[in-house]
Amino acid sequence: MTFTTRAIAAQNTSDDLAAITIERRDLLEHDVRIDIEFAGICHSDIHSVKGDWGPQHFPLVPGHEIVGHVAEVGAGVTTHSVGDLVGVGVIVKSCGECEKCLNNLENYCDKGALLTFGSPDPDLPGHITQGGYSQSIVITEKFVLRIPKNLDPAAVAPLLCAGITTYSPLKHWGVGPGMTVGIAGIGGLGHMAVKFAHALGAHVVALTTSDEKVAVAKRLGADEVLITRDADAMKAWRGKFDVILSTLPGDHDMNPFIELLAFEGTYVIVGAINDMTYPLDLPAIISRRKSISGSNIGGLKETQEMLDFASEHGITADIELINADYVNEAYKRVVAGDIQFRFVIDTATIPAA
Amino acid sequence: MTFTTRAIAAQNTSDDLAAITIERRDLLEHDVRIDIEFAGICHSDIHSVKGDWGPQHFPLVPGHEIVGHVAEVGAGVTTHSVGDLVGVGVIVKSCGECEKCLNNLENYCDKGALLTFGSPDPDLPGHITQGGYSQSIVITEKFVLRIPKNLDPAAVAPLLCAGITTYSPLKHWGVGPGMTVGIAGIGGLGHMAVKFAHALGAHVVALTTSDEKVAVAKRLGADEVLITRDADAMKAWRGKFDVILSTLPGDHDMNPFIELLAFEGTYVIVGAINDMTYPLDLPAIISRRKSISGSNIGGLKETQEMLDFASEHGITADIELINADYVNEAYKRVVAGDIQFRFVIDTATIPAA
Repeated sequence: MTFTTRAIAAQNTSDDLAAITIERRDLLEHDVRIDIEFAGICHSDIHSVKGDWGPQHFPLVPGHEIVGHVAEVGAGVTTHSVGDLVGVGVIVKSCGECEKCLNNLENYCDKGALLTFGSPDPDLPGHITQGGYSQSIVITEKFVLRIPKNLDPAAVAPLLCAGITTYSPLKHWGVGPGMTVGIAGIGGLGHMAVKFAHALGAHVVALTTSDEKVAVAKRLGADEVLITRDADAMKAWRGKFDVILSTLPGDHDMNPFIELLAFEGTYVIVGAINDMTYPLDLPAIISRRKSISGSNIGGLKETQEMLDFASEHGITADIELINADYVNEAYKRVVAGDIQFRFVIDTATIPAA
Repeated sequence: MTFTTRAIAAQNTSDDLAAITIERRDLLEHDVRIDIEFAGICHSDIHSVKGDWGPQHFPLVPGHEIVGHVAEVGAGVTTHSVGDLVGVGVIVKSCGECEKCLNNLENYCDKGALLTFGSPDPDLPGHITQGGYSQSIVITEKFVLRIPKNLDPAAVAPLLCAGITTYSPLKHWGVGPGMTVGIAGIGGLGHMAVKFAHALGAHVVALTTSDEKVAVAKRLGADEVLITRDADAMKAWRGKFDVILSTLPGDHDMNPFIELLAFEGTYVIVGAINDMTYPLDLPAIISRRKSISGSNIGGLKETQEMLDFASEHGITADIELINADYVNEAYKRVVAGDIQFRFVIDTATIPAA
């Protein structure tokens, strides 16, 4: 009832990732088997394997930015055919019955959506879900997305996480013409946010600590760049932003960003996944009816919409395509912030274990 | 160009308040002179005179919950007539030209609205505005509200601050039938919030640490009471609230309340005016697209709407009417939480200085 495929896995939280052979389930009625060609490296892959978010089952194959071709479909599959170019993102199953699932918000499923890697797999008891750093994967058809043919498929892979994670809040908070939007942090998530916010017609300001990001942020589509270490510039921009989408990865002082918000502006967090421990300037929020909020990936329907929007506007991620033997080095460079902006693994290069 | 009136003032941050004679300006073209009959005591009066919010000018006459009759009107006044029952709240002037003022959001005036007491008075240079603990006040007609005749005027006074401060966010966040609303803190603000939320048709849950508040909260209109020290009850209510309006007065841990919010629920703060220093559970916000926000009083149009709504639903504050010589004792009881729910001064009892 299973078959094997090559993969790259972590065996524990400290050693390098290495080649491994893993099992995938044989196709259920609504399953699609995908020959994976490209798998993006997301910073959250690294947090997971390092155990930053709690204990993990090992061996663990990371990867939730997956692109490949359909190799086989289950008897009941109606939405995909052998040979289709498809993708898989952060979630691979949800209850399908709760109010959120019934409203295309599987990412907010009341029972918790099944993550692409690292969660106990209900369809392969005794195993965990294993992710995209592999050559084959089996996914319920509903969670398989159509990849537009006019885009570079390797550079599309990061849209499945970094893309939808930024597109969904931009849409939810109504970003478009006439709005001034700040994108805080110009990394993997942030560079996608700049591209989408620009394509949505907003006035886009990249917020970064780094002078070195000015030129690249403008190339990505930022109308302006605000260096957040520049006190005078921060003062000049006070009260100007309708929305700030924060892709900043860790605990940080939100107050300087809240000051930048206009009346009823919202600071939307998609980056940080830890507690915020800095004192929060509540009067600044109350006196201008501002908000702090957050957003978590996106639903399947919206992810498809994002891919179609990307197709229409020619949007992909800026990537560095690597071979499987470079993954550990790539991890170090992601942690160091030394990548513009996403590594994508050519999974054909994964060796036999 | 001025006249005098009796008042009760603080002379510094530590001594008792005492009788004083203060000056009021003679009427400008659009001014209304009001013979004050009732003045509510708001906890913020106490914070102001104690210097909790920064240095103050003294002597300082607090009070921004004012009800009385029109005694005289300026030549250009069209909206009020001598003999009308009227009220004054927290703000008495704004720029009138900014986008907020032009949209009936004077409370969010870009240049800062003029507070009823304690701010340099542009219409009486060299003086500060002096508040409602007095027998007469002169106010620009736009900032004078019509008080419904079917309500007890003494018990209407607190609506001018506690009422609008809670009514405005309930309306802004769409509270009404089909929604479950929590009111955190059942004090001066909270008891008004329960009454309004109930009248707006929401399912109202009072959130309190105090068993003693259960009966009174239900009498005020709460459908249910959640004792926040009861871990099992808190667990049972997890994810159930569309909105929690927090009237909690100080720095507090927001995480238990954020846990109570439903998907896309909002924790709206109107009570605390300090920094929040507790670590904030960001994953809880992000994973359910929740928000933290705040609200600051209300605009003039909405304040009038609130008064008319109160008239229609027979809503006033629960008050203890006191004489002027009880103000200092009342302050102690407010600080001790020993009042259900608002003291109102009968200003006829203010003695000569």
